[in-house]
Parts: sequence; C-alpha cells; structure tokens
Amino acid sequence: MMKKILTSIFIAFHGLVLIAQSDDDALFIKQLHSYALKEGKAYQWLDTLCLKAPGRIAGSKSSSIAEQYMLEVLQSLKPDTVFLEPCETKSWMRGSIEIVETIDQHGNRHELHTCALGNSIGTEGEMISGECVEVLSLDQVDSLGNSLKDKIVFFNRPMDPSLVNTFHAYGSAVDQRVWGASRAAKYGAKAVIVRSMTNKIDTVPHTGTLVYIDSLPKIPAMAISTLDAEKLSEKLKNENITINLASSAQPGAASVNYNVIAEWRGKQFPEEIILFGGHIDAWDMGAGAHDDGAGCIHAVDAINILLAQNYLPKRTLRVVLFANEENGLAGGKTYAENSNKRNEKHLAAIESDTGGFVPRELSFDSETSLLIDYMRYVNQWLPLFETYDLNFKQAGSGADINPLKSQGSLLIGLRVDPQKYFDFHHTKNDQIYNVNQRELELGAATMASIIYLLDKYGLETKN
Amino acid sequence: MMKKILTSIFIAFHGLVLIAQSDDDALFIKQLHSYALKEGKAYQWLDTLCLKAPGRIAGSKSSSIAEQYMLEVLQSLKPDTVFLEPCETKSWMRGSIEIVETIDQHGNRHELHTCALGNSIGTEGEMISGECVEVLSLDQVDSLGNSLKDKIVFFNRPMDPSLVNTFHAYGSAVDQRVWGASRAAKYGAKAVIVRSMTNKIDTVPHTGTLVYIDSLPKIPAMAISTLDAEKLSEKLKNENITINLASSAQPGAASVNYNVIAEWRGKQFPEEIILFGGHIDAWDMGAGAHDDGAGCIHAVDAINILLAQNYLPKRTLRVVLFANEENGLAGGKTYAENSNKRNEKHLAAIESDTGGFVPRELSFDSETSLLIDYMRYVNQWLPLFETYDLNFKQAGSGADINPLKSQGSLLIGLRVDPQKYFDFHHTKNDQIYNVNQRELELGAATMASIIYLLDKYGLETKN
Repeated sequence: MMKKILTSIFIAFHGLVLIAQSDDDALFIKQLHSYALKEGKAYQWLDTLCLKAPGRIAGSKSSSIAEQYMLEVLQSLKPDTVFLEPCETKSWMRGSIEIVETIDQHGNRHELHTCALGNSIGTEGEMISGECVEVLSLDQVDSLGNSLKDKIVFFNRPMDPSLVNTFHAYGSAVDQRVWGASRAAKYGAKAVIVRSMTNKIDTVPHTGTLVYIDSLPKIPAMAISTLDAEKLSEKLKNENITINLASSAQPGAASVNYNVIAEWRGKQFPEEIILFGGHIDAWDMGAGAHDDGAGCIHAVDAINILLAQNYLPKRTLRVVLFANEENGLAGGKTYAENSNKRNEKHLAAIESDTGGFVPRELSFDSETSLLIDYMRYVNQWLPLFETYDLNFKQAGSGADINPLKSQGSLLIGLRVDPQKYFDFHHTKNDQIYNVNQRELELGAATMASIIYLLDKYGLETKN
Repeated sequence: MMKKILTSIFIAFHGLVLIAQSDDDALFIKQLHSYALKEGKAYQWLDTLCLKAPGRIAGSKSSSIAEQYMLEVLQSLKPDTVFLEPCETKSWMRGSIEIVETIDQHGNRHELHTCALGNSIGTEGEMISGECVEVLSLDQVDSLGNSLKDKIVFFNRPMDPSLVNTFHAYGSAVDQRVWGASRAAKYGAKAVIVRSMTNKIDTVPHTGTLVYIDSLPKIPAMAISTLDAEKLSEKLKNENITINLASSAQPGAASVNYNVIAEWRGKQFPEEIILFGGHIDAWDMGAGAHDDGAGCIHAVDAINILLAQNYLPKRTLRVVLFANEENGLAGGKTYAENSNKRNEKHLAAIESDTGGFVPRELSFDSETSLLIDYMRYVNQWLPLFETYDLNFKQAGSGADINPLKSQGSLLIGLRVDPQKYFDFHHTKNDQIYNVNQRELELGAATMASIIYLLDKYGLETKN
C-alpha cells in the first residue's frame, strides 16, 4: 500500500510516462509463484546436477558432464536455438595431499583442517617448513617487509560478524585470500595460510580463488578452518610456532569449457535480448548446490515456469549458464566479446549467484548515465513484489553479466537471504541437502516475474 | 530512502506531531545488532534450554526444569523483580504405544509413521479397527453423516503449497487437526487419522493440539506423515483399506505451571509496561528449539543486549515467558487476568512465536479504534529498519499476548521467514541444530530495537 502511494508520487514528481502495473500483472505473477511452488522442477534438476556433476571446476571431467546435462535440460524445454559457446579455460587440481601442521616449542605436532586455495601451486612432493607469523592485513605484510623472509605468513583477519549482510563481511576480508600469497612472496615468505572465509567457527576449510601477480614468485597458499585459526592465534600469543605444509596442488593444462545457451526468440522485438543465468562451474570440494547450481536452476526453472503458462515472449529470452566464474571469468568475458561482435543489444541481464536461499531483493546496476532513469522506471513494479517481501536496490549485479554494462543494459542481481551462504560457500558442505526446496522455487518464481515484466513492458524510460 | 520520503508524507498529510527518528537512533539500533551478532548469548541459552528441557509440555517434569532454568537466566541479568506466576494447566502424555497400520484386501499390513495428537485420548490397551474413509474437510464429514459410523476417518486436505506464506497454508488446513475428531465422532466414527501439517512430503509425523467438543464422544486422533497420507490416498482409489490403530495417550492430572516474569522498572514512566516474550512450553516430541524456545530466547537476549549498552529504561520493561501456549493457553489467559486485577497498563506487548529464522517483519495489532493511529505513529520508525530489510505490517500478533488487546495495548508480533517453519513444527526434528545462530541473533536484535523505540518515544499518538 505504502509502496503504491510512493509509485504514484514518483510518477507525479518526475513526469515520466510510466506504464502502471495492472491487476493482470499481479495475477500473472501470483500464477508464476503458484506454479513454481506446486509444479516447478527446480529442486529435481538441482538434485540431478549435484549428483551427476559435483565439483565441476573448469577443465574437470565433471565440468563437461555438467555442460551436457544442462544442455539436455534446456533442450527438453524446446528452445528456438540452443548451443554451446566455447571459451578457453585453465584447469587446476588439488590432488590428494593437503597438510598444514603446527609444531610448538616442545615439538608437539597438531594437524589443522586445511585445503589448498584455488590456483595455488603445491609443494612438489616436499614438506615446506617455516616460522608462523600472524598478520591481519595486506598492509601489515608491507610493514613487516623483509622480516618475513622464509616465514609462513598466517592471514587471520576475520569476516566482521557485526555486518548484517555477510557479503559485505566477505568483501572486506577476501583480499587476504586473493592477494595474500603474492603480497607475502614479495618479501620472501615461503607460503601462506589463510583463515577461511566464513562467520562460523568450525572445522571446515573453505577454498576459493587466489591471484598470483606475474612479476612475483609463486608460493603455496592454503586455507585453514576458522576454529584452527582461532586456536593457532591463541598459541602464537605465548610461543613461536613452526608450520609444516605440503600440498599436491598444481595448475593443469589449458582447457576448453562451454557457456550453455538457449534462446526463445521474441515475436515482436526479437533484437531485444533479456538474458538470465548463473554460472555452471563450481569449486571441486562440494557439489556446487548453492554456488552456483542454484543460480543456473533459477534461470532454467524461470523459463520453464513461464513456458508452462503458454507465455509467448515479445522479446528474446536467453538462458546463459556461464563457464568458469570461479576461476578466471572466461565464460562471462567470452560471452560479452562474442555478443559485441554480433552487434547484439541486451535490454537486460539477470544473474543469480548468491545461493538458493529465500529471495530478498533485486539489485539493479547499469552505466551511471542510465541508472537513475532505469531505477525510476523499474520502481513502478515494486508494488507487484510487495506480497513476496522483495525489495529493489541500486547495487552490483553479478560477475558474469557485468561485462554487458558497456551495452547500456540494465543489469539485475537476484539476491537471496545472505545469513547462511558462507556456512557452505566453497566447502565440501555445499550440497543439495543444504538447499530448501521451497526457497529454491521462490527464487525461480522471482526471476520469472521480473523477466515477465521486462519482456512485456520493455525499458522505454525515455518515452 | 523511499520509506523516508514516505514518512515525511505521512507526517505532512495527517498533521500528526511525530517524533522523527534521529541519526542517534539509527546508530543505537546498529549497535544493538552488532552486539547481538558479536556478543549476544541467544544461541548458547537456546542450546542449554533444549538440552536441559526438551519436550517441555505443560505438566511435564521438563516444563518445571525449563521454568527454573529460564528463571536463573533472567536472574543473571539482575532485574528489579523476577517471579513465577502460577497457572492451572492439565498434563497429557502420549506414552509408548503409537500404531497406525493399514490392511489391504489381501491382508497385507503396512505400518505408518504416526503420533498421537495432543490431548487425544488413547485406545486403553486395545487395537481399534475400522474401514478407512478419506475426507478433505469437516464439511465433507457432515455430508457423509451416519455412513461414517464405526469407520476410521482420514483427514487428508494438504496445506496449499502455492501459498507463499506457509502460516496461511497452515491456517487453512489445521481445522482438520483441531476439530476433526469431534466432527467425526458426531456421526459415530471410531477414530480419526490426520495428514501432518507440513508442505514437506516426508515420513515425519507432526503432533499438535486437538479440541474435543464436550457434548460429543471423545475418540482417538493420530497424525500420520504426509508421505504415508499420499500413499494411503493412492491405495484408497483402488480398494478398501482397514486401519488398525492403537495409542497409549492419556490426559494426565491437573497441574500447575508458571509464567516466568522479570522486570526492569522504568525511571520516568514506570506505570507504562512494555512486555516482550514467547512461550516456554513445547510439544513433547522435539526440543522446542524453534517453537518456541527461539521466541523466549529472543526476548531474554533482547533485554540482555539493551542492558549491555548501559541502557536505562524510561518505561517498565517486562519479559514474560508464557506457560502452556500449546495446550490450552493458560499462561496467556492467567497473565492478562492478573494484570487486569492489578490495574496495569501495557503500553505494548511483543511476542515472538514463528521460530528462530531470519526476521522479516513486525506485525502490529490493537483494538480497531486505535490501530490506525498506532500504525501511522510506528510507520515513522520504518526507515530505521530499512537496512535490515524488515517490513511493518498490520496483522495479528501472538496467542499469548492477544488477551491484552482489551487494555488498548499495541500488540506486536516478531515474524521471521516462514518457509522452513513447518518442516520442524511439532516434530522430533525441532532441535537446536536446525536453528542458525546468526538468524536467531538477528531476531533478538530486532526485538531489542523495537523495544528501544517504544521505550524512548512511547506511543503518544494523540498529541
């Protein structure tokens, strides 16, 4: 009710010609939600994807199985076009050896819960040994400088639990994982260990990508669980600790993966593309149920739900399941490059990559010059989402669709409740049994609803 | 941002003198959230409550342990007053025998997952046997009338999965559980079995209260799991099925339970009481983690969080943990009666009884003549909750505080995300490991925030 008043006010104040949403729209969106909750296939598809192709990191056998499976699922929905778009990726393998152990001054050894960070080099059959130095930031590494020579640097700044949005907490801590190895290598450190990226205090290590700076030596990097990080930090207050570290991780060969793409051509404005998707790859340790099987399935079930209502798209609806988000973004980059070569115009692109939890908001992003008008325009639709307690926000969208910003597209992120995401993110526990069926289905319904509005009304903010 | 504009509009339109929320308020509410997430004790208290006093249904030994434990917790927070308020309850025990089995026309027997409904009588050592008749509503029982004599009536109308708010789906199906036995008894049925109240299709039976109408014979009533209900319904399409049913359930003796009450006297307006709480009892099969340990702990941690900021209440803050909500509402009724006798005035009462999931909204209720003004008044606070994605809604509050409506109090429900509640509600699976720590803590922070605003500004809507 309040939001409806507000919409009228925006219309009145800004003199835009807006198409007010009708009762028909409310009814249709309700129908999409009902269908998703009663007859949607999201959970079943996600279950099969996780079963057939867990740990589908770029270059792995599992990544090919995932591409084939999702291709079959999309084909079953009878698109006008369906194809695989190749992109060059690099494989990476952790192998079977992952050891981090502490040795105190009495020679007591204690093994920590650990895993290699994605892209890390290993120790080539050796055990690396060095004195542990705890730091809380990249800057602190710079302050310590050459005193870090031959040391093993322990990055231990926690995600800030007081931040309600856990993605903000992640964003403010993850620089240690991404850049820690090269920063420490700059001063001659032998290796780094990094506190896992989660608010939970437990024994589960979290992997995730690291980036080596080309001009610096590559050193091994491993995550340790938050509980181990807390205990190690305690020990370091009283004594020197030596770290032994071994890892069989190694970069693999160059590889080819595929963006999986299916398209339903628009009857009225076929040249206006509405893209929606997630990324098909997932870290090797879990099944990629939340990250980002859920996002892929949101998109696939969204089109399924729409088609099941005999909906005839005016514009071109295109599902894109991006390759290699976790480990290089080759899928998103390649897709945008090829799209630009084809002189395509994406009206809008929607990505779901925050898990399969209950949907909370749609985030909107675009080129700065366009965004205000876009926000004014889409805000007229907000009352339609009130029943579903969904908010609209001006914020980033998704890593894979971000390169489309240069087309002037409206970029949209489907954001789900963030409280539990980092309990599972990049761990062995990212499994289907940690996804709730109704929550997943509601995400698909949300995506279907915004696709429907974009397709029906377009984005003619300048009329 | 939008909500802020809206607030100004309400102020302008309605000419009310409203106290606009200040940046100080935003800061203090942020502080409450930070503290809850970093140092709150909610999870630890709930864990201990569930461990010490699972299945704390009225009249049970566990219910007394729960009262004592929560009393100690409240005492540790140094209230000005803390006491136990007696109320007359009735105990009920399911005992060890719970059998529902189907027998098909070939004599094949199949045992279903079952539990007695709360308050149901048992079969006194006998096995009851009768032909199964499936119905979808109480009305259908009336249509079938005397043909139900000696039958076992099977209520099988599912909760509607297409309703986004699962509480609405529960509300539209639970009449079968509450009134089914007496309705069927009216026409001579021997017993009833009722499809469990959940959207999940699984093998977990859900208990919950039934009410016998005094003028009708009492017959046994048992819940069966949704999966069993689906399968039984399939069988009944093709053949007659006999049900065998046995239960050792029996009403126990009259008993005494206690509302657990602690109070921090207001320095400025001690006669204006702000109550907040949940219900301390829980069905016997689980640990009552979500229902309603979470609600009790929300209230206790809310006062803890406030006190930890050295907050000095202007008004009287009173935690009330109500006895016997599940099985007769004696706690809520007794509390309101005694409060009325003492000529107390509750400015507001807040109840949390929808679980320990992530907070989504505050619902507001009061006497019809007062509610519009109350809503206008509290809506000025809505912008303060925008960061936390919390909505305000005009809707019912909670069963225990509802009797305070006659005092003209503002009644408030803390409503959390409803998607998973009925996965656990009234089952053996209502356990601490199904509660997420951060989600629980956010609920406590939400409650603390609204208490703070009510305490600081009061509710002088008529100024």
